[in-house]
Amino acid sequence: MMKSQIAKLGHVAIHTPDLEESLWFFNEVLGLQIVEQTNDTAYLRGQRDWEHHTLSITESGQKGVDHIAFRTSSADALSELADQFETNGTDVTYLDAGVESGQGEAIRIEKFGHPYEFYYDVEKPRAPEDQRSGLKNRNYTEAVANRIAPRRIDHVHVQDPSETATDHAVWLEDELGFRLNERYRAEDDELWGWWLAVTPLPHDIAIHREPPGSSEGFHHLSYHLDSLNELWSAADILSEHGIEPDGGPGRHAITRADFLYVSDPASGFRIELFAGPGYLNFEPDWEPIEWTEEDIGGETNHQWVGQGPAWDGLEYVN
Amino acid sequence: MMKSQIAKLGHVAIHTPDLEESLWFFNEVLGLQIVEQTNDTAYLRGQRDWEHHTLSITESGQKGVDHIAFRTSSADALSELADQFETNGTDVTYLDAGVESGQGEAIRIEKFGHPYEFYYDVEKPRAPEDQRSGLKNRNYTEAVANRIAPRRIDHVHVQDPSETATDHAVWLEDELGFRLNERYRAEDDELWGWWLAVTPLPHDIAIHREPPGSSEGFHHLSYHLDSLNELWSAADILSEHGIEPDGGPGRHAITRADFLYVSDPASGFRIELFAGPGYLNFEPDWEPIEWTEEDIGGETNHQWVGQGPAWDGLEYVN
Amino acid sequence: MMKSQIAKLGHVAIHTPDLEESLWFFNEVLGLQIVEQTNDTAYLRGQRDWEHHTLSITESGQKGVDHIAFRTSSADALSELADQFETNGTDVTYLDAGVESGQGEAIRIEKFGHPYEFYYDVEKPRAPEDQRSGLKNRNYTEAVANRIAPRRIDHVHVQDPSETATDHAVWLEDELGFRLNERYRAEDDELWGWWLAVTPLPHDIAIHREPPGSSEGFHHLSYHLDSLNELWSAADILSEHGIEPDGGPGRHAITRADFLYVSDPASGFRIELFAGPGYLNFEPDWEPIEWTEEDIGGETNHQWVGQGPAWDGLEYVN
Amino acid sequence: MMKSQIAKLGHVAIHTPDLEESLWFFNEVLGLQIVEQTNDTAYLRGQRDWEHHTLSITESGQKGVDHIAFRTSSADALSELADQFETNGTDVTYLDAGVESGQGEAIRIEKFGHPYEFYYDVEKPRAPEDQRSGLKNRNYTEAVANRIAPRRIDHVHVQDPSETATDHAVWLEDELGFRLNERYRAEDDELWGWWLAVTPLPHDIAIHREPPGSSEGFHHLSYHLDSLNELWSAADILSEHGIEPDGGPGRHAITRADFLYVSDPASGFRIELFAGPGYLNFEPDWEPIEWTEEDIGGETNHQWVGQGPAWDGLEYVN
Repeated sequence: MMKSQIAKLGHVAIHTPDLEESLWFFNEVLGLQIVEQTNDTAYLRGQRDWEHHTLSITESGQKGVDHIAFRTSSADALSELADQFETNGTDVTYLDAGVESGQGEAIRIEKFGHPYEFYYDVEKPRAPEDQRSGLKNRNYTEAVANRIAPRRIDHVHVQDPSETATDHAVWLEDELGFRLNERYRAEDDELWGWWLAVTPLPHDIAIHREPPGSSEGFHHLSYHLDSLNELWSAADILSEHGIEPDGGPGRHAITRADFLYVSDPASGFRIELFAGPGYLNFEPDWEPIEWTEEDIGGETNHQWVGQGPAWDGLEYVN
Repeated sequence: MMKSQIAKLGHVAIHTPDLEESLWFFNEVLGLQIVEQTNDTAYLRGQRDWEHHTLSITESGQKGVDHIAFRTSSADALSELADQFETNGTDVTYLDAGVESGQGEAIRIEKFGHPYEFYYDVEKPRAPEDQRSGLKNRNYTEAVANRIAPRRIDHVHVQDPSETATDHAVWLEDELGFRLNERYRAEDDELWGWWLAVTPLPHDIAIHREPPGSSEGFHHLSYHLDSLNELWSAADILSEHGIEPDGGPGRHAITRADFLYVSDPASGFRIELFAGPGYLNFEPDWEPIEWTEEDIGGETNHQWVGQGPAWDGLEYVN
Repeated sequence: MMKSQIAKLGHVAIHTPDLEESLWFFNEVLGLQIVEQTNDTAYLRGQRDWEHHTLSITESGQKGVDHIAFRTSSADALSELADQFETNGTDVTYLDAGVESGQGEAIRIEKFGHPYEFYYDVEKPRAPEDQRSGLKNRNYTEAVANRIAPRRIDHVHVQDPSETATDHAVWLEDELGFRLNERYRAEDDELWGWWLAVTPLPHDIAIHREPPGSSEGFHHLSYHLDSLNELWSAADILSEHGIEPDGGPGRHAITRADFLYVSDPASGFRIELFAGPGYLNFEPDWEPIEWTEEDIGGETNHQWVGQGPAWDGLEYVN
Repeated sequence: MMKSQIAKLGHVAIHTPDLEESLWFFNEVLGLQIVEQTNDTAYLRGQRDWEHHTLSITESGQKGVDHIAFRTSSADALSELADQFETNGTDVTYLDAGVESGQGEAIRIEKFGHPYEFYYDVEKPRAPEDQRSGLKNRNYTEAVANRIAPRRIDHVHVQDPSETATDHAVWLEDELGFRLNERYRAEDDELWGWWLAVTPLPHDIAIHREPPGSSEGFHHLSYHLDSLNELWSAADILSEHGIEPDGGPGRHAITRADFLYVSDPASGFRIELFAGPGYLNFEPDWEPIEWTEEDIGGETNHQWVGQGPAWDGLEYVN
């Protein structure tokens, strides 16, 4: 496996028509922590996220995703990546430190319609003292957290029209050094989905293919919980707030993780709460697993509790 | 609350066209323990069931339920119950000890089309030594159990045509001393379901109403597992055996328990694996809870993961 | 089994030298809900307790337990019990309705040095609207509960000098109709502990024997949580508050339940958080299980994580 | 963080005086799968291990550890590592393919008394068909696994005399590219323990310091389970087999994982079953966390259920 210049998924930046309502959902209901709030933008993260934020929400009168950001493995890796993009003919936008709160210099590109950002320097503020864990390897204490309180950012899932989906996946493998863990081959014998990672997680980013002529879009951002029990407790808490999940709780065949989908009523932005066994892939010579409908469903029903109707993804705006 | 002569749900006796296949399902897949096996009948129970059996399966060329048996609180209570039925004009059939293996004298009646049995004397054989728990308050050891291995019988669920459903529920309350814990009022403003118990469980027996002219029938027998984790593990194990659950895993609003439905391929007999918080009702002055569709579903979606299409119940045969 | 006039454990009333600090512990840390608070007394209960309170705390300058209260199965059962005590030569104190907030007429006796109360009439106030569950079979919502939030009262555990311990247990069986589920025989061949219930729980009350000449006392009150995961989360939360548990988390051999002991710093009153499989005893002809040290410990170590040093119980005061 | 040539912990090879008894413990009790067995050696792995083995056991009349093996990230990385060791004056032993079953060429060195092996080529046999999971991202099915059945190798823990412990840890960081996640500073103000990883796990290897003049040794090999519930179930199963754990179940402050220690009666080799939240460290600029006794214990008791007396590690033999 090629060593990637990317260390991890960093954050997603989104737009909302109503920041107050979005903060009700993300902070009060889900229990994400607010690190900083300016006039129009709030920066949030999970209980055990160390970076300044893993989600930023800007009130702009629009609904949609602004960009998806990956952190590089070093400052040099960021420069190398910029050079490599330029060499390959990809337009690179250079951002000064501080354009996003808590973040140093960054670069942005658009590939296959997706706005990607890369950065290395980032602040890692500890939780405020009255919310700080007594455990040095945790950030926020759970003693004052609500009963969902996602622990850390996990992955993103995006969608592409069939014209570009495969190229997008290949680009992530070839140019960015992602490892393809699993893929899904549809009944038309074409690939339909790709689960890719630079870490041992089952995926840091997944892509699925939409019909020809569709817009590319953003499907969901996932946060990790500690256990299946917490996932079900989350479904209880959402119910008590009068919020109906988009799907689940259930267990995926691909990635073998437990899931629950729920969307912010204000922005339409979808979160996948993620838990359970899943797997960690430490193999340096991994052969991608390929699934067909027959492998997953059929008589053996390895995928519990379907994800319901195909939901629309959010478009990119900025 | 009136003191009931009934102590608990005892067992269910069923028919199968293929005992060997039924034992593959109940013993090998589900992990119920076989206590005794005769030419045509097998007697099974859960890891922590103490009575001789909580399920008996007879190969008879038929599919269906033979009878539902409750254990009385004493030998005297059994006699009182027999006298009471006779007085009230219900035909009582008297069974000698040993008609069912491990069981003393019993009586049987048919009410609203349901074949009920009552008994008090019963053998309580300990697990064979090589399967016995070192814990005196457990019966079988889990060291040699499979990964589902239900712990104990929990409840039965039956169905009635709308002509008799209400009378059936009232009879269980008035003549047998069941406490009505919860009921469901349908959109036609008529009661649709009743959850009744003589123990603090959310229900020992539930009834739901089918359309006018339907046959009465048996919907499922439930066994209890120790945790939500075990319920999901059970769904995994079923998948690995190529068996698709009838519904779930999910969480009921009524009874607030976690569930998974699955049927024996040979007999069509449905088991509900039950786990999770639920509740215990120790209140001597309980007012039945009444639910409507609006209370359970609607925006708040307190019932996760619908139970799928209305499944047919099994008919009674003997 | 004799039918008991007692339906369930109702509540425990305790004294504290500092109500504010006790409420920090019981309400803020443990998450018990405050139902009512007067000048010197606070009334608390768990998330799914229905009665007005299951714990009352009175600031009196003293540390100790005021009384242990059981609810009878009916108003008549309360009268019968009073008559029975008088007949047997036990002094009965009659309390008017309202002496304890939310409670009707009650009687009190002292047996073997333990102050017992019995009552039937009790208010069952629903949770305030902003804390109320949308589920009709739950009381408080967990959406605004903290991460411990015990669900319901479970049992009490008291201690006696060896001179009276056996008589105390026999009295609970013979006069009050408790079922003896389990007992422990010490190396001196005398009984050391008794686990007794009027419900199917492993115990509503337990007694253990202290050395000759000891005072009778109160060991702990137990509240139930939903799962082992919650028990461990509770240990985390206590740590984050700087509170060291008295013992556990561990799993008992007797009762086979998971436990964690922790005491209120102000009053010294000990709570046992209880969870896990345990068992429910529905058998009408239960033979008490008898354990010896060899059964529990020895090579097989069925009792994990010893309960630490023998802790002092609290004395009774009033 | 420097990129390491090492991809992951691969396996540990141990000696036993009685292979049959060791297989009773590792295969029948723990549920590790036997992949291959020769005259004197058995090769085992967990349910989701992909490599040929993660533990090998050789009957040799001795008790002790033969070597600890890491897999490199590529065949080139193995050559580079060999060259680097030679350049630095470390004696390198070259092993032909097949010296260990299922494994290609390998190199061995001894550093600070620890026998380390490095390899890249390895067979990855799928589970036999009748034990194979229907899920392509799992290896063995749990449908025929016992109730412990560890999932995958997690980490090793070794010990050093105080003369070399620090140098050993520095060597792992500087020459092998391990990241130091956490360390412990004892009351004498010297470092006592180091938790190091090349993966995002809390540690792939830990070192603790023994008194001056002690022998270096091997403390335990850890396998991962899916949940806290499974960890407690494992303790139950061990009890039922008459095996007393060495310590736990408990939760570590450092690594924040749930643990249970247990040793093979025949070889004395200690396994740590590992589960629970722990954490994954994806940070490319991680600052090692340093703990003191005050941070972990003291009033806040962040470390539950002490690991008991300091146990002896096993010596290295070959």
